[in-house]
Amino acid sequence: MLSENVSSYIENNRDRFVADLAEYLSIPSVSALSEHRDDVGKAAEWVKGRLEMLGFSARVCPTDGHPIVLGRSPEVAGAPLLLVYGHYDVQPPDPLNEWVSPPFAPDIRGGYIYARGATDDKGQFLTYVKAVESILAAEGKLPLNLIFLVEGEEEIGSASFEKFLVAHKDELRANAVAISDGSQFMHGAPAITYGLRGLCYFQIDLQIPRIDLHSGVFGGMVHNPIQVLATLLASFKKPDGTVALPGFYDDVLPMEKWERDMTATLPLDVDALKNYLGVTELVGETGYSILERRGARPTFDVNGIWGGFMGEGAKTVIPARAGAKVSMRLVPNQSYARIEEIFRKYVADNMPPDAKVTITDLTSAAPVLVSRDSAAMRSAERAIEAGFGKKPVFVREGGSIPVVNLIKNHLKQDNILLLGWGCPDDGAHSPNERFCLDDFIRGIRSTAALFFELAG
Amino acid sequence: MLSENVSSYIENNRDRFVADLAEYLSIPSVSALSEHRDDVGKAAEWVKGRLEMLGFSARVCPTDGHPIVLGRSPEVAGAPLLLVYGHYDVQPPDPLNEWVSPPFAPDIRGGYIYARGATDDKGQFLTYVKAVESILAAEGKLPLNLIFLVEGEEEIGSASFEKFLVAHKDELRANAVAISDGSQFMHGAPAITYGLRGLCYFQIDLQIPRIDLHSGVFGGMVHNPIQVLATLLASFKKPDGTVALPGFYDDVLPMEKWERDMTATLPLDVDALKNYLGVTELVGETGYSILERRGARPTFDVNGIWGGFMGEGAKTVIPARAGAKVSMRLVPNQSYARIEEIFRKYVADNMPPDAKVTITDLTSAAPVLVSRDSAAMRSAERAIEAGFGKKPVFVREGGSIPVVNLIKNHLKQDNILLLGWGCPDDGAHSPNERFCLDDFIRGIRSTAALFFELAG
Repeated sequence: MLSENVSSYIENNRDRFVADLAEYLSIPSVSALSEHRDDVGKAAEWVKGRLEMLGFSARVCPTDGHPIVLGRSPEVAGAPLLLVYGHYDVQPPDPLNEWVSPPFAPDIRGGYIYARGATDDKGQFLTYVKAVESILAAEGKLPLNLIFLVEGEEEIGSASFEKFLVAHKDELRANAVAISDGSQFMHGAPAITYGLRGLCYFQIDLQIPRIDLHSGVFGGMVHNPIQVLATLLASFKKPDGTVALPGFYDDVLPMEKWERDMTATLPLDVDALKNYLGVTELVGETGYSILERRGARPTFDVNGIWGGFMGEGAKTVIPARAGAKVSMRLVPNQSYARIEEIFRKYVADNMPPDAKVTITDLTSAAPVLVSRDSAAMRSAERAIEAGFGKKPVFVREGGSIPVVNLIKNHLKQDNILLLGWGCPDDGAHSPNERFCLDDFIRGIRSTAALFFELAG
Repeated sequence: MLSENVSSYIENNRDRFVADLAEYLSIPSVSALSEHRDDVGKAAEWVKGRLEMLGFSARVCPTDGHPIVLGRSPEVAGAPLLLVYGHYDVQPPDPLNEWVSPPFAPDIRGGYIYARGATDDKGQFLTYVKAVESILAAEGKLPLNLIFLVEGEEEIGSASFEKFLVAHKDELRANAVAISDGSQFMHGAPAITYGLRGLCYFQIDLQIPRIDLHSGVFGGMVHNPIQVLATLLASFKKPDGTVALPGFYDDVLPMEKWERDMTATLPLDVDALKNYLGVTELVGETGYSILERRGARPTFDVNGIWGGFMGEGAKTVIPARAGAKVSMRLVPNQSYARIEEIFRKYVADNMPPDAKVTITDLTSAAPVLVSRDSAAMRSAERAIEAGFGKKPVFVREGGSIPVVNLIKNHLKQDNILLLGWGCPDDGAHSPNERFCLDDFIRGIRSTAALFFELAG
């Protein structure tokens, strides 16, 4: 439920909320690039400042990497404690030349705000801050206790987060955790995510000849590392869409009947999706629907590849080196440690004798499945109905949020509410990322309702 | 034969010849890169100037691309006319960080001069100029007529050369043509090349999704263009080392017995070759020796590949686009037009429906086979014996020289002498390209002897 007072406040302060979001988005807090280190720090300070303005005691905690912002609301005796997770760092904006407006100069067009981080995760996280502000302004006090935990390395694998959780685990024990980093199922179909895929991400660097070679003089007598790499990568996928790594599917939990039934009812607009993607057919693992492939089946993708001459014109070279970045999305109960073992062995077994291969583990995350039947989940369901005017659907997401596992494991936390107000076609990780401003407002409403529902 | 006068002159002027070569090498005449356009012009002027200094009437002829230098020696009545071909442009020097000394700051170490173009083709071409100088200084006049035809686009496919030949064909009729762009078989084994491989070179650009995609949200439902490209490229080669294109071998002329016998006697130091290449095994088409694979069998190579995220760390993207540069070395009687047809059809037949593929023809050359039994060939054989102190071996080269075909076809010229003084391990097209200064001198001696042998 959402009271009239809170509802009105949110409506009346919309423009100021949007302006505040724009200010937050204008800080280029790109965690992956060292030249933005100072901007990342600025964004942390900005978040801390906003929390303090709401009466939270907040601090910017240094780590070995980017800082973590920790804020706690004034104590409400006897009320439950909700831990809210978000991240203030954003993906790199490249390729820059494909943005209509600059990635860090937020622009409002057609009811959307366009900027890197608009949905992932600044717009979504800010709804929690604005919900607090709205409740305080309308009701004078919060109905529950809140801890806001906002990190700056989510886009680069959250390297400092685990150590922080371990060091602060007593301080962070809560009745439930809300993760701001989720998504609606589609525009107009708010969702609660109950499953996430896991992730393994590797870089393969391969060298065969000692030096670059003239392809006339040496073509036909040596292995070309690009050919070897292409052959290796091609071998990872079978024509039926499955991943060819031996043992890859051993630990995959089959979907339960109720899951397949429910997934089949999700309102997927296949034509709109094809249009968005610019394709006429959607492909993937035989025997599974589009949504099942995305949410409940593991995959293999090459994220980048390079080698040899990439410049203007023709250079008849056999390069010495080639490389690729590859990743696998995992599902319960696949273990990324086991998959890494299988992967490394497979690569080693499929290299010619003179290949010098280096495999670097760049990041990883375990897959997640959360029970839908808890009181916290039911509260979230009612809160979204209040905020959006319709019940949420339950989905298994295709992406990974590594911190969810860390929170589950280190804080012994099973009540994980994976919520989100942005949409899959908002371009997270792509140029022209955006966030619907009406959904920004609905998200603030839902979050405020959530606080009241959890308080009982 | 080489007279004592000419021989002494060459020996006594060695240092000055080397200094002159260094000056020529210091001009960064990189034809492939537009930022070096002026340097290319400078190199043309340098060549023209050197020819004029020798009494040639010379001019720098503009073309739609880089200019062509044309020089003619003073007429010697009743003597044959030799057309000498060379090129004053060089390959791009990248990767720059692998050069010990800068590519355009010639450095002499261990008896070699190191610079881009040291062997290909500046060092080799300059031997003809120095041979003329030496004969004029020692004997007062040349024994034959010479035309020097020096282009500036050999490294980028000689686009202007054909038009020039057609426009000047009457002016360029000669009794024989010497091509400076060949190679010794190996250090200490001078060679005459009687065969060249042909070349087809294509760029494949592939796009599937409309935009870059988040691999969590969309992984498992769309074709990844890197995966499609890798699978395509992998399919071009079979495990036995042959090229899988249907019909690729249809027109290949089998080697004759005498060729296979002779090739088997060539003094190939396999261990030194493996060492140079940094490999423990040499691979290639089953049923053929190393040299047969290089000289008389066609091949397929990927020269460059790119797509997706290549930067620091992990970006979980499915890119919209990927691309590659591929080339095929051809042998007589394969036709590059026919191979291009086969190639384009094969790519089109192996693309998923939503793939948008563009194939760009970047350059091509027909394969070449020259008769070894002509008077001109015999003259060249004696000249090299005089210059190097040993008979040359006869080899089929692995590389391509497109202008040879143009000369054959447009100038109706069969007496083509493919000569060279550099060696395969000189790093043509690689960093730290070099030329042995003793061989520079032997080349000048051989060229001077050639002029006398051809004059009869």
